[in-house]
Amino acid sequence: MCRFITYSGAPILLADLLYRPTNSLIMQSHHARERAEPLNGDGFGVGWYVPDIDPSPCVQRSVNPAWSNHNLQNLALKVRASSLFAHIRAASPGMAVSETNVHPFSYDRFMWMHNGVAAGFHQIKRRLRDHLKDEFYDMIQGTTDSEHAFALFLNNLRTPFGETSPDEMRRALCETIGRLNELTRGAGITEPSFYNFAVTDGRATIVSRYSSGENIEGASLHYSRGRQFECLPDGVCDMHTVGENQRAAAVIVSSERLTDDASDWERVPDNHTVTVLPDSVVSVEPIDL
Amino acid sequence: MCRFITYSGAPILLADLLYRPTNSLIMQSHHARERAEPLNGDGFGVGWYVPDIDPSPCVQRSVNPAWSNHNLQNLALKVRASSLFAHIRAASPGMAVSETNVHPFSYDRFMWMHNGVAAGFHQIKRRLRDHLKDEFYDMIQGTTDSEHAFALFLNNLRTPFGETSPDEMRRALCETIGRLNELTRGAGITEPSFYNFAVTDGRATIVSRYSSGENIEGASLHYSRGRQFECLPDGVCDMHTVGENQRAAAVIVSSERLTDDASDWERVPDNHTVTVLPDSVVSVEPIDL
Amino acid sequence: MCRFITYSGAPILLADLLYRPTNSLIMQSHHARERAEPLNGDGFGVGWYVPDIDPSPCVQRSVNPAWSNHNLQNLALKVRASSLFAHIRAASPGMAVSETNVHPFSYDRFMWMHNGVAAGFHQIKRRLRDHLKDEFYDMIQGTTDSEHAFALFLNNLRTPFGETSPDEMRRALCETIGRLNELTRGAGITEPSFYNFAVTDGRATIVSRYSSGENIEGASLHYSRGRQFECLPDGVCDMHTVGENQRAAAVIVSSERLTDDASDWERVPDNHTVTVLPDSVVSVEPIDL
Amino acid sequence: MCRFITYSGAPILLADLLYRPTNSLIMQSHHARERAEPLNGDGFGVGWYVPDIDPSPCVQRSVNPAWSNHNLQNLALKVRASSLFAHIRAASPGMAVSETNVHPFSYDRFMWMHNGVAAGFHQIKRRLRDHLKDEFYDMIQGTTDSEHAFALFLNNLRTPFGETSPDEMRRALCETIGRLNELTRGAGITEPSFYNFAVTDGRATIVSRYSSGENIEGASLHYSRGRQFECLPDGVCDMHTVGENQRAAAVIVSSERLTDDASDWERVPDNHTVTVLPDSVVSVEPIDL
Repeated sequence: MCRFITYSGAPILLADLLYRPTNSLIMQSHHARERAEPLNGDGFGVGWYVPDIDPSPCVQRSVNPAWSNHNLQNLALKVRASSLFAHIRAASPGMAVSETNVHPFSYDRFMWMHNGVAAGFHQIKRRLRDHLKDEFYDMIQGTTDSEHAFALFLNNLRTPFGETSPDEMRRALCETIGRLNELTRGAGITEPSFYNFAVTDGRATIVSRYSSGENIEGASLHYSRGRQFECLPDGVCDMHTVGENQRAAAVIVSSERLTDDASDWERVPDNHTVTVLPDSVVSVEPIDL
Repeated sequence: MCRFITYSGAPILLADLLYRPTNSLIMQSHHARERAEPLNGDGFGVGWYVPDIDPSPCVQRSVNPAWSNHNLQNLALKVRASSLFAHIRAASPGMAVSETNVHPFSYDRFMWMHNGVAAGFHQIKRRLRDHLKDEFYDMIQGTTDSEHAFALFLNNLRTPFGETSPDEMRRALCETIGRLNELTRGAGITEPSFYNFAVTDGRATIVSRYSSGENIEGASLHYSRGRQFECLPDGVCDMHTVGENQRAAAVIVSSERLTDDASDWERVPDNHTVTVLPDSVVSVEPIDL
Repeated sequence: MCRFITYSGAPILLADLLYRPTNSLIMQSHHARERAEPLNGDGFGVGWYVPDIDPSPCVQRSVNPAWSNHNLQNLALKVRASSLFAHIRAASPGMAVSETNVHPFSYDRFMWMHNGVAAGFHQIKRRLRDHLKDEFYDMIQGTTDSEHAFALFLNNLRTPFGETSPDEMRRALCETIGRLNELTRGAGITEPSFYNFAVTDGRATIVSRYSSGENIEGASLHYSRGRQFECLPDGVCDMHTVGENQRAAAVIVSSERLTDDASDWERVPDNHTVTVLPDSVVSVEPIDL
Repeated sequence: MCRFITYSGAPILLADLLYRPTNSLIMQSHHARERAEPLNGDGFGVGWYVPDIDPSPCVQRSVNPAWSNHNLQNLALKVRASSLFAHIRAASPGMAVSETNVHPFSYDRFMWMHNGVAAGFHQIKRRLRDHLKDEFYDMIQGTTDSEHAFALFLNNLRTPFGETSPDEMRRALCETIGRLNELTRGAGITEPSFYNFAVTDGRATIVSRYSSGENIEGASLHYSRGRQFECLPDGVCDMHTVGENQRAAAVIVSSERLTDDASDWERVPDNHTVTVLPDSVVSVEPIDL
């Protein structure tokens, strides 16, 4: 189990998402609030897009804890992004802490993160890989359920990279969950799996909140949408609400609320996806498998 | 603030001290019990002696968290030591997480660890260094109060390396605390300092529990002494009591009790030292400055 | 292409193999002599056995260069081993520098190293994996041809771990080479592959020198056998020859000669294996596929 | 001895300086041409300015070799800078490989790099530090001669940060060399020192080429000035010459020529400085001490 955050909207300094909020992602790396275990110290990753250079993301990952990483601290104070993924890892038991296992995973223009676990993953790994086209089979560098789910997602896409619509991304993500369910059921695994996945192509972002267990809640997930997310010099961060004749230009989807102002945040219902479009339109839809 | 452990006695597998006890040092790296903040994830170090090779210790250090380090896991299952220091670090604010700042520090045959903080260290650092002989001035590789205190300790020794008695080591350690007090007082620093120091030459070990603040308790410190410290295959670890006609052959001094059996552990009183001699004799004495 | 060394015999300080010889493995990490590219800076690993504790090896690996690693320097001065593997890596193009890709690989009581490359590995990887029993399929943590060859070797063993004879180990190693040849041929790959493999169970060691290309020499491989390998205080290291009424008690197999005294070293012929038995008996045999 | 590069001019993709030229800095990390030892594998650092955010640089450093660092590879493809410092380190004997010893060093708006060595540095370190104001004494995090020289440079500045003219920077740099000469002479050190220093405040850049030994050449240093430095899709990189009615807008100062076209490069004479002004005006002046 891990924690993650996505941002889409007007360019924002990374530090305003990662360091400055009361319950920032860096704070969550050692003092997460909404999971039983507050520690997410098994590495971190951030990725963002520089669309005027090329459509693939700039990903920076490390197995070191996020809270003490000087390079991340320096970057966060100097990079502005309009589309960001960031993740802090708490390695599941038996999953190695190695750079190849750190999120976000990326391929071509896509980034992928996971907060959760595929129950009994070792029992389904081989069959999962058998489904994959060579390209995505070969893409896998590490050993996590998360990266394998990413390969499955890419395998499910029906349109060429660069022509994928938000709807198609959402469909492929839901198909990924459905396929994982088939695989675990087929292997006789009865423990619940947790699939909070986030995927983006640098334009649209889809995030799922999903638990395969009946009456078992998925991992926490929230979003916040407004005119601008801003951290003032006094250290208070806030999502400004959209006034009349104004447009939303900032959407955060996050495992935990970053700020104490609960009115800024919507809880994503279980077994739903959040879709964030380039114009900051957000839709929440049930996952029908 | 950090956590540490020292062991002296019959050879013991490192895993039996570092991993297997209920409240092992590795457990304390993410779930310390006896300090407000349970996390000690800013690196770790272990050092032990191989006296049939030479009198200097074998030190292994890393800025990575102890809980996920494969090399430490492997070593701990294959190395037996009769004299061990181990430390997990929680960097004080403003102290860099870098390998040169990881404990134990070592020089010649000595190892040194610190759990605590010299209040206002940056205000006394320069005057502290002015006291040092060139040899110990040049020895310093990092920026911590802890390593500087070690340099002060070595500077205070009146006998050549290799001829230092346990009494002389204890005297130099107490003088180190006294000198630090003079320096902080001289700089007008009024916040309390905490000096749980551990030093060994591979034969005797001295550990202090000290707070410079009136009516302010020092960081926790315990010791356990017995015939043998053993972890059974069922996972239960225990210090065996010394029966009639038996001799003590195992002494642990530790920031926290490693096991739940409180009767195995003695709390070190504030402003006292624990001295562990090579024959496992333990003495607890007040620090008179 | 990489460099490696194996040692079997009377206990020897690691530094006497890794650091002190004129052309030590650490020297080869930046100034290898017998390959076109002198740099092997993409990580290192060492593994040795402590048979009175258990039959699995103690492996220490890092992606950092060997030449500057303080932990390795300290360990090498304090650990004696009677069975050692050590490896320095020069990552093949396209193979990630990550801890999971560093040699020696280990599983149960076996260690495995590789100096060479399976040509067109990405084209045979999937079929190779299809051959593997689940246990060895799941064992794979990284992405190298080398680790996959290790999985194939384990898959080829016909006897349970712990009951494997040196002959059976040699047979399985040769079968591994044969199977790799089948796979690359089947994929239409015509470039030569290089399979200098080393495997040990902590008692016997088998090392191959093999090139699949006709008239293309395999990577360099040498061995030295004598009464004792010793480094004198003046820095000169030497394999003492076996006199009358004396027994050999030290065998080194190494990608490069460690010392300048060529008379101490035998060149392993192409497409042969060297087998080192626990009593330091060495046999060199052709690889018949 | 190390290798470094500075760039000032129109924004350029980091990859076009660090990776794409024939003799790029990354190439020099394993195959440097103009020093006896081709290896510079003891860490790397890059720093650049984002002036619309704040005047301090964004520095990224690592003890890992530059050639295999994924984060650097990714960043270099996505960051454009108009003022860049980059450095690859070959640690001098006895200087630890630790993150705090990696260049460029930075403080407030300044960055500093060094290619060379202060002879007998350990004999002058303490007296050098005695000269420093507390602010710069406390700034020092590592143990290198290079970082101590940076502290001396800052100590020599007579104007507040942010108001320092290029002339004042040059004067302070030359004074630093003079002071180091006094210190080594005073300590009776007769071996030559090498002081190729580079300093910038994000606007002007001063680089020295200096050897304190009579008739002993300083480390290599070159510069290239033109309209634009460009790497074409076919992989050829070139400094475009300034035509009539055109202005220079790109200046590289580098330990080695990055490209094979020698006509693009000027060799900096021994014991001279190169000053690069914000408008790409370059002046080469002798160092008079």
